[in-house]
Amino acid sequence: MQIATPYLMFLGDVPDTLAAKTAYGINDWRPDWCVGQSRMEGCAADLGIPDLTRAEAVERGCRTLVIGVVNAGGTLPEHWIAEIVAALEAGLDVASGLHVRLGSIPAIAEAAQRHGRALHDVRHTTETFPTGKGSRRPGRRLLTVGTDCSVGKKYTALALERGMRERGFDADFRATGQTGVFISGRGVAIDAVVADFISGAVEWVAPAAAPNHWDLIEGQGSLFHPSFAGVSLGLLHGAQADAFVVCHEPTRTRMRGVEAPLPTIAEVIELTIRCGRLTNPDIRPVGIAVNTQALAEGQARALLAEAEAAHGLPATDPVRFGVDAIVDRIAATFPA
Amino acid sequence: MQIATPYLMFLGDVPDTLAAKTAYGINDWRPDWCVGQSRMEGCAADLGIPDLTRAEAVERGCRTLVIGVVNAGGTLPEHWIAEIVAALEAGLDVASGLHVRLGSIPAIAEAAQRHGRALHDVRHTTETFPTGKGSRRPGRRLLTVGTDCSVGKKYTALALERGMRERGFDADFRATGQTGVFISGRGVAIDAVVADFISGAVEWVAPAAAPNHWDLIEGQGSLFHPSFAGVSLGLLHGAQADAFVVCHEPTRTRMRGVEAPLPTIAEVIELTIRCGRLTNPDIRPVGIAVNTQALAEGQARALLAEAEAAHGLPATDPVRFGVDAIVDRIAATFPA
Repeated sequence: MQIATPYLMFLGDVPDTLAAKTAYGINDWRPDWCVGQSRMEGCAADLGIPDLTRAEAVERGCRTLVIGVVNAGGTLPEHWIAEIVAALEAGLDVASGLHVRLGSIPAIAEAAQRHGRALHDVRHTTETFPTGKGSRRPGRRLLTVGTDCSVGKKYTALALERGMRERGFDADFRATGQTGVFISGRGVAIDAVVADFISGAVEWVAPAAAPNHWDLIEGQGSLFHPSFAGVSLGLLHGAQADAFVVCHEPTRTRMRGVEAPLPTIAEVIELTIRCGRLTNPDIRPVGIAVNTQALAEGQARALLAEAEAAHGLPATDPVRFGVDAIVDRIAATFPA
Repeated sequence: MQIATPYLMFLGDVPDTLAAKTAYGINDWRPDWCVGQSRMEGCAADLGIPDLTRAEAVERGCRTLVIGVVNAGGTLPEHWIAEIVAALEAGLDVASGLHVRLGSIPAIAEAAQRHGRALHDVRHTTETFPTGKGSRRPGRRLLTVGTDCSVGKKYTALALERGMRERGFDADFRATGQTGVFISGRGVAIDAVVADFISGAVEWVAPAAAPNHWDLIEGQGSLFHPSFAGVSLGLLHGAQADAFVVCHEPTRTRMRGVEAPLPTIAEVIELTIRCGRLTNPDIRPVGIAVNTQALAEGQARALLAEAEAAHGLPATDPVRFGVDAIVDRIAATFPA
C-alpha cells in the first residue's frame, strides 16, 4: 500500500478528540504532509492546521483525503459518503482507517472508478505477498518489541527515526499497523494479513537496503500475548532484526484484553533473542523504552536507572526523556 | 466449516493418482464416509470404491460432492463446471480443496443458490473468529508439532485418533489444514485465517470438552520455519496443549522451501515447552514420530531406539510400527 502525499485530513463531525486519535498521530509525526483539515459542522476535533475546502487542498498540492477518525461502531456514517465522493470528484485519492472497506460502498466505488482515483483501506490488505524466505538481506533493521500490546512500540520506532536522522543516520520508520501506514505513506497492517504470509509481508515492508541504512520496524503484540504471539513471531522472523528495543508499560498488571500475566523485560529479551536468531544469528537488544506517563519524574528516573542496571541496556521514556541514549548504543554497537 | 457427510468423491479427469492425493487420504481415514466416486472420461485415479452416478449417490445418502483433486495451476477446469452444477442440481453440497473459490464461478454460485446447497472452500475461510482468549478450558489436547513442514503431523494425529479409540479413549482428530478438514468434516485451514485470529481459530477448532476427552490437533509448519513459525506459535497457544508429539523426517537436510537448517528434535521439544507454557504450564512431550520411509527396517529401528534413549520418549514411525508406544505413554501420564 502506497498512499500519495500530502494529505487533506478529514475529521468529519467526530464528537471528541479521542475519535480523531489517528489523525492527531499523523499530524504529530508528519506535519509537513498534513496540509489542511476538512471538518463538518459539529466537529469537536481540531488539528490546529488550516481548514481547507477540497479545491483549496488540491490547489496546495494535496493528493489524498485521509479518514483518520473512528465512528462509534466502526462504520462509515451515511452523511460522510457525500463528502468522500466530493473529494474523489475534486481529484483526491481517499485513504481510510475504518473497518468498513471504502470500495464496499457503491457510491464511493463508482466515484473512484469514474475519476480514476485510488481507495486505500489501511486496516485491510489487497496486496498478495510471497511467503517469507528467511534469506539474509542487506541493510540494517531494528524492531520494537513489547511486554504487551499498546506499550509504545510505534511511538518508539518513530522517535528513533527522528532521533537517528538528527544524528545523521539514514533511517526510515516502517509501518506494520494502520496509523503507522498513514504516517509512513506505505506499509501493511500486519495483523490483517493471511497467516501464511506474515513474515513474507514484513520482508516486503522492510526490503533489502544499503548496508548502513536502518529500517525502524514498528512491532505488534508480544511473543507473550496468547492472542497475538503468532503475529509477533512472524514479524520478528520477517524483520531479520539486527537490533531490538523492548517497550514496556510498568503499571499494567496483566496482558491487554486477556487474563495472562505480564512477562518480565528479561523474559522478553531472552525469548526475542532465542527466536530471532532463526533469521538473524546476531540479533541483540539495544535499549528499553518505558512509558512512564503514570509516574512522577523521580519515580520514572529511578525505574529507568533500575532497568538500565538490571539489563545492561540504555533505558528511557522516549516521550519524556528522548531516545539519545538508545541512539548512542546503536552508534556504538553498529559502526558504519 | 462443517461439511455434511457422507461424500461422493469427485476425481474429474486427473492425469495421475498424485493429483488425487487428497481424495486418497480422505478415503484412507474415512472409508465409511466415501460412499462412491465420480470420475470423468480419461480419469487416471481410482479409489477402488463404487463408481456412482449423482442420482445413485444421493439415493445412498451422500450429502456432499468432494473435490479432493488438484489441477495443474490450481484452477477449476472449464469442463468440470457442468459436473459441479449437475451435482448441486442433484441435491449435493460441494466442498472443494482448489485454490479458486467455488462461489467465484457464476454458474456454480447461481446453481447453489437456486437449489439451496452449500459451497465449501476448505482452503479459504469465511468464518469470523474471536481473537484467542488464552483462558484454560476443560478437556485434554494433544498437538503434533514438527521439525519442519510436511513431516507427518496430520498422519500422526490421525493415527493417534485411531489408536486411542481402539484403546477405549474418547478422542477426536481436529483439523487445521485442508485435507484434515475433509477428513474430520469440520475444522479450518489455519494458514488461511487472518493473522490476528490464529489462536482464536484454534480455540474454536478444539473447544472446551469433557475432562477426559482428547482432542488430537493437527499441527502446521514448525516454530523453526522462517516462513510459517507465526502460524505454528498461534496454533500452540490456541491449542493449550497438555501433550505434544514431535514429528520428524530424518533425511531432510534443510527446511522445506527455504535455506534454513533443520532444528534438532531436542530444540523443538525445548522451544515448544518454553512457548507452550504461556497457555498451559503443564505442557509435556509424549512421543516422537519419525517418517522412516526412506530407511531400511534395521536402520529405522536403530534410529528410533536412539531417539528414545536420547529424549526419554517413545519414538515410532506411525505408518510402519504403529502408535501403541505413544498411547501407552499418554495413558501412563494422564490417568483418567
